[in-house]
Amino acid sequence: MEKIIYLDNNATTMVDPLVLEEMLPFLRERYGNPSSMYDLGGEVAKDIAKARIQVAELLGAEHEREIVFTSCGTESDNMAISGVLPQNGDKKHIITSRVEHPAVLNLCKKLERDGYRITYIPVDREGLLNIDKLKESADNDTAIVSIMLANNETGVIFPVEEIGSFLKEKGILFHIDAVQAVGKIPIDVKKLNCDMLSISGHKFHSPKGIGALYIKTGTKIQPLLHGGHQEKGMRPGTENAAGIVGMGKAAELALKSLEREHEIQKLRDSLENGILEKFPNCSLNGAKNRRVPNTCNVGFEYIEGESILLYLNEKNIAASSGSACSSGSLEPSHVLRAMGVPFTSAHGSIRFSLSRFTAKDEIDYTLSVLPEIINRLLEISPFWDSKNKKPTGIRF
Amino acid sequence: MEKIIYLDNNATTMVDPLVLEEMLPFLRERYGNPSSMYDLGGEVAKDIAKARIQVAELLGAEHEREIVFTSCGTESDNMAISGVLPQNGDKKHIITSRVEHPAVLNLCKKLERDGYRITYIPVDREGLLNIDKLKESADNDTAIVSIMLANNETGVIFPVEEIGSFLKEKGILFHIDAVQAVGKIPIDVKKLNCDMLSISGHKFHSPKGIGALYIKTGTKIQPLLHGGHQEKGMRPGTENAAGIVGMGKAAELALKSLEREHEIQKLRDSLENGILEKFPNCSLNGAKNRRVPNTCNVGFEYIEGESILLYLNEKNIAASSGSACSSGSLEPSHVLRAMGVPFTSAHGSIRFSLSRFTAKDEIDYTLSVLPEIINRLLEISPFWDSKNKKPTGIRF
Repeated sequence: MEKIIYLDNNATTMVDPLVLEEMLPFLRERYGNPSSMYDLGGEVAKDIAKARIQVAELLGAEHEREIVFTSCGTESDNMAISGVLPQNGDKKHIITSRVEHPAVLNLCKKLERDGYRITYIPVDREGLLNIDKLKESADNDTAIVSIMLANNETGVIFPVEEIGSFLKEKGILFHIDAVQAVGKIPIDVKKLNCDMLSISGHKFHSPKGIGALYIKTGTKIQPLLHGGHQEKGMRPGTENAAGIVGMGKAAELALKSLEREHEIQKLRDSLENGILEKFPNCSLNGAKNRRVPNTCNVGFEYIEGESILLYLNEKNIAASSGSACSSGSLEPSHVLRAMGVPFTSAHGSIRFSLSRFTAKDEIDYTLSVLPEIINRLLEISPFWDSKNKKPTGIRF
Repeated sequence: MEKIIYLDNNATTMVDPLVLEEMLPFLRERYGNPSSMYDLGGEVAKDIAKARIQVAELLGAEHEREIVFTSCGTESDNMAISGVLPQNGDKKHIITSRVEHPAVLNLCKKLERDGYRITYIPVDREGLLNIDKLKESADNDTAIVSIMLANNETGVIFPVEEIGSFLKEKGILFHIDAVQAVGKIPIDVKKLNCDMLSISGHKFHSPKGIGALYIKTGTKIQPLLHGGHQEKGMRPGTENAAGIVGMGKAAELALKSLEREHEIQKLRDSLENGILEKFPNCSLNGAKNRRVPNTCNVGFEYIEGESILLYLNEKNIAASSGSACSSGSLEPSHVLRAMGVPFTSAHGSIRFSLSRFTAKDEIDYTLSVLPEIINRLLEISPFWDSKNKKPTGIRF
């Protein structure tokens, strides 16, 4: 396989070779069921306990028993919100934002059909959350507020700490979807004043199929799945030991690599500034100084994002338009629409997302091949007059 | 690590080395998100499609689109039952058996609290289902019947084909928990007349953390999780590609190895007959001729199953008392209690479960070390008079 320049780390990440190394024994000789009495199984339970501590440390949890392993970020998000509703008396109001991941938004749509009232907080042109609107919307009927820490498409960071202390005072439960923040910026659940926080392993160099939910001690919540005694009954099903141990190691590595986040940011900025300088039809999506360090979302006006991706793919560069979870749809991203990004720019938006494995020469190469791609697409665009370097005036 | 004689394949199985080989590229260089447009991701979608066909073939599905990948057997069971209830008008009755896995029983208990009426069909002393009682219980209010294909503790096979045709005529939905049958006996969802059927990968030599639910075309069901478009919206969350591809390969291998099930049965029978001949205080749990070929559950009267397991562990033999999903509890198995196995025998019951990797010398060794273990425990038992070889008469 040819070398891929992988700039889509918000979609998924490479499993860190050190993580895989930790996992392999559990896919080979250490296959015992952790619930078993014999050593082959019982010993695995100890490794799971260690991974729980590693994840608790990454999130700043008070105690590792506050970590429940799940199968993915979607399950964590669904479990958090669905799990507390029946435990909250008759409260029927949920607050979230317009730019959440489908794992929250589509659950909320379902809950709306079930009779819940949902307030979707808007964002501004830079993707920043309208926190005043959030505060106004919270009332005695509000059961839970679910807000993401960082947006998957733009990387914009939300003021969850401020929201957390406001809600704590109000006595309203707070769930944070931290899937796109974990491993990219430091997380401290105590500082954030949240009751629950979701993460997904494959977004920070563990394998796919493993996630976790932080649940603050004392939070009244019922499990999403019903079955065996695993995870103290909060998540039945034989433990995915390889995945859990892998995520534990990934958490340890993420904690260390957070020190190097400025290096990733430097690379991201050189890519971003390079693009914004080179292409006058290009603009940044998202607040420049309130973003996770790895993400760059830029809109190229008058051309199609998907066409850019196809050409980038030919050059062995992997990037994305919007979220992988909504790909295959021709609709422009719900995030960019909520931000009021013009249709002409939203359709030509591309997300580059870096990781600690991204190298400088990969960014240089990407910058070197982009002009050819963008100019070729502008030339065939019915909306752009390449000769006179201005829009043709044709409407979408 | 010393060589383990692993006779607990109903708890979990070793990942077949051929399965791991298929998985490894997806844990290394082929990490792309299958929803992505570029080759690194898009190509993975093709491997997932292949795995879907492999699983469909193992189950005899009409079409591979009837297979939905989940994170485990528990999720499949929960999704099947919870998913069809809201689609079934006002029907409020569910039929299941007393000996189902906790993934069905504990969900049913939860649904009971939510206002559903549950009928738990009893089994007889041999663990065979009272099918007349099942037929009598079905009425116009019955939304779904959920019955396992083979019991995890005794290996007893239920007459799901007969139940399926009865329910089809009645127009009642039928879900089969085939977690303990898959890979052990042939499965043909069309013959079984079921609408849904659950399997779990780690019970047939794929890794933990992957399962599937067969859903017959036309079955009205809503997803358990809400989120992205994955699995046509039926199971959102980034696909666990390594797990899915592994389960696909395991399905292919299981289909082939079914031809050799008589070899496993021969080994199981030699173990079972050896035990029953050697120990007069021992009896078989489960109908001798209606079981999956790998499972042997025997009750040793007057001694503790857990003590036997500890001594077996010292001899590097892994076996189990009851199900791993209820281990840690001092209650005797709900399955053996439902069968009316006397307390004195249920407490001393041990399950040996073999696989295609079990070798004859392992069975011989197990038979050779058992007498010392059983006799030692009988000697210290307050309920057994070793000198006069009869019960002491002391009551439990």
